[in-house]
Amino acid sequence: MTPDGFPVVGIVGAGQLARMTYQAAIALGVGVRVLAERPDESAARVCPVVDLGSPDSRADLIAFAARCDVVTLDHELVDDDALEAIEAAGGIVRPGARALRFAKDKLHQRTEFARAGLPVPSFLEVLTVDDIVAFAGTHGWPVVAKAQRGGYDGRGVWILNDWTAAADLVRDAAARGTPLLVEALVPIQRELAVLVARRPGGECAVYPIVETVQRDGICHEVIAPADVPAGIADDARRIGLQIAELIDVTGVFATELFMVDGGLVINEVATRPHNSGHFSMDACATSQFENHLRAVLDWPLGPTDLLTPYVVMANLLGEDRESLAPRVPSAIALPGGVHPHLYGKEVRPGRKVGHVNAWGTDADETRARAVRAAALLTGRRPRAQSPDGRNS
Amino acid sequence: MTPDGFPVVGIVGAGQLARMTYQAAIALGVGVRVLAERPDESAARVCPVVDLGSPDSRADLIAFAARCDVVTLDHELVDDDALEAIEAAGGIVRPGARALRFAKDKLHQRTEFARAGLPVPSFLEVLTVDDIVAFAGTHGWPVVAKAQRGGYDGRGVWILNDWTAAADLVRDAAARGTPLLVEALVPIQRELAVLVARRPGGECAVYPIVETVQRDGICHEVIAPADVPAGIADDARRIGLQIAELIDVTGVFATELFMVDGGLVINEVATRPHNSGHFSMDACATSQFENHLRAVLDWPLGPTDLLTPYVVMANLLGEDRESLAPRVPSAIALPGGVHPHLYGKEVRPGRKVGHVNAWGTDADETRARAVRAAALLTGRRPRAQSPDGRNS
Repeated sequence: MTPDGFPVVGIVGAGQLARMTYQAAIALGVGVRVLAERPDESAARVCPVVDLGSPDSRADLIAFAARCDVVTLDHELVDDDALEAIEAAGGIVRPGARALRFAKDKLHQRTEFARAGLPVPSFLEVLTVDDIVAFAGTHGWPVVAKAQRGGYDGRGVWILNDWTAAADLVRDAAARGTPLLVEALVPIQRELAVLVARRPGGECAVYPIVETVQRDGICHEVIAPADVPAGIADDARRIGLQIAELIDVTGVFATELFMVDGGLVINEVATRPHNSGHFSMDACATSQFENHLRAVLDWPLGPTDLLTPYVVMANLLGEDRESLAPRVPSAIALPGGVHPHLYGKEVRPGRKVGHVNAWGTDADETRARAVRAAALLTGRRPRAQSPDGRNS
Repeated sequence: MTPDGFPVVGIVGAGQLARMTYQAAIALGVGVRVLAERPDESAARVCPVVDLGSPDSRADLIAFAARCDVVTLDHELVDDDALEAIEAAGGIVRPGARALRFAKDKLHQRTEFARAGLPVPSFLEVLTVDDIVAFAGTHGWPVVAKAQRGGYDGRGVWILNDWTAAADLVRDAAARGTPLLVEALVPIQRELAVLVARRPGGECAVYPIVETVQRDGICHEVIAPADVPAGIADDARRIGLQIAELIDVTGVFATELFMVDGGLVINEVATRPHNSGHFSMDACATSQFENHLRAVLDWPLGPTDLLTPYVVMANLLGEDRESLAPRVPSAIALPGGVHPHLYGKEVRPGRKVGHVNAWGTDADETRARAVRAAALLTGRRPRAQSPDGRNS
């Protein structure tokens, strides 16, 4: 408990999600304790209460949990057994180990989602290369192979065009001890995401459906609200809520969706605040970070409606190794305004070091402003836009 | 400089204004160092970089400034000579000592404002009780006596009805070494405030004019935007900008105004973020705290427009000594939503321990929601409202 009687939320991991959750906690008066691997991590630089330790260490996690009223997670790469041990000892972990498994174990997730009638791509567990070949015989090449655990931002995903590529991958994966699954390649029209905040008792709040613009498996922009037919938005909300209930998640929970032929297919889920929800920080009645805290504390959730017609988030991906600081003034000077959210990380090429939100009444202008600000902040030349306004 | 190359803003004083400025600094990537008198002060509880020292100590201030790229202030009660010494040694203090004097020294402020043609009440420096009597002879009893320095939240202000009260006050003030001035009692219709952010070169951003609802000299509510004729709002903006230029302020700057007989009279000024600007945290394109940081860093200012038709802020004044924590859930559950901003202070009767913002499309409902949330958070029974919707 804090000196003024507020609960302390422990966050395992000290990345930018923990950093932004801490920002929201300051206003709520809620205490935050962060478990960081190094004192220079994003959240450890701004939060005064930091325990150094490893999310892989059962002893570190149990000691950490003993100092917190409730434990939540900055990322899913946390030792399962330790979380179960914390729960067994009466500690509170939100989301719990059971929900977390759906985000960590893709085979488990696909199997359970398919069983519940949720729209997932056709998939098969891969034990030998013959499984891939048989799967491709049914669904056609190319197919998508995925690591069952640990992939993110395009890592752990391989498009396989033929037997040779499949055999190479299966051999390498076996050498690394990486179990695989194979999925049908989905003809993606657009990518969407739905963010749900859920309390332990089941109360949910759903954020507006967004479009995510990906390149090379990495999210570059998020457009809120997504310009999709009402039926698609309704389906996305329904899927998000159904999964939240199915996996009994607590906290903010993201579902990434593929829009295909007018329908939706589930891509990935994340049992935590998510990059696709950063738009909420400047333009929603309640940010995803505040609602995550409210949810894990079992406090009533806040409204999720947009306060402006459009918000666009653009990620800041490092272009060089220069500090962003000298570039901030030109970005924030853009007419109409933008909000940078910087993560306090040293810049490296390709590293996600922040994001910027723009808001406005015109969808195209708002998006152009966000993209321009991101380019000014990173020094990256903006990609040419195709005539329909979508980046090439 | 921070490890990732951002400037460090030093804040003298660790109250709630420093705390909320720190919140804004996290997103901007800007470093913050706080000079606190005690480690349990509001900002010292949330900011990891705290120097313990006194704002009255020249040595503490000079040592503190040496560790910061620019120094700004949580409150005006800072040693003048030390600020001038920092400036003389090449340090940067924003706002500077010259601007600060207008907030600290009411006689100086009234004299200079009157000289510049700004609307101030009639006033006179008080050397003996005869000065008050002569002033009352011209303007009539009652008159308002004020301490020239150090008053706030109704402290340092006395309504005098007759010679006896005047004589008592002058004797007590002389004993305490408190110089006085006397002013005409203004027939206040309403109280307004205008917030200006100003960069060193003179670029300004003006926030929407707000109405402040005061009781016993303490601000209880702030209504944005103020429901006043356009001409009054224009006058308020013009006065705010004229003063900002006159005193050459840097940072956020507040002017409190009395509306009298359809005109405006200047009440007080504050050369820092201000209680009357807290509405900006949840409902403006850029909060006063972010714009204060941008201004003192000489970065471009952000837009100040409201993202919702109405926002109402209600201060949380302690009613008892109980923690606010158990009361948060019922307050944030109010339909339509509210945002608490809690200061991490132990609750004491009458102490300002936080504020709450409500936003919406209906002025009366929004105000009622903010007031209700404040009552739920503090345990204070809301005051009965008079038929015109103004609190009694």
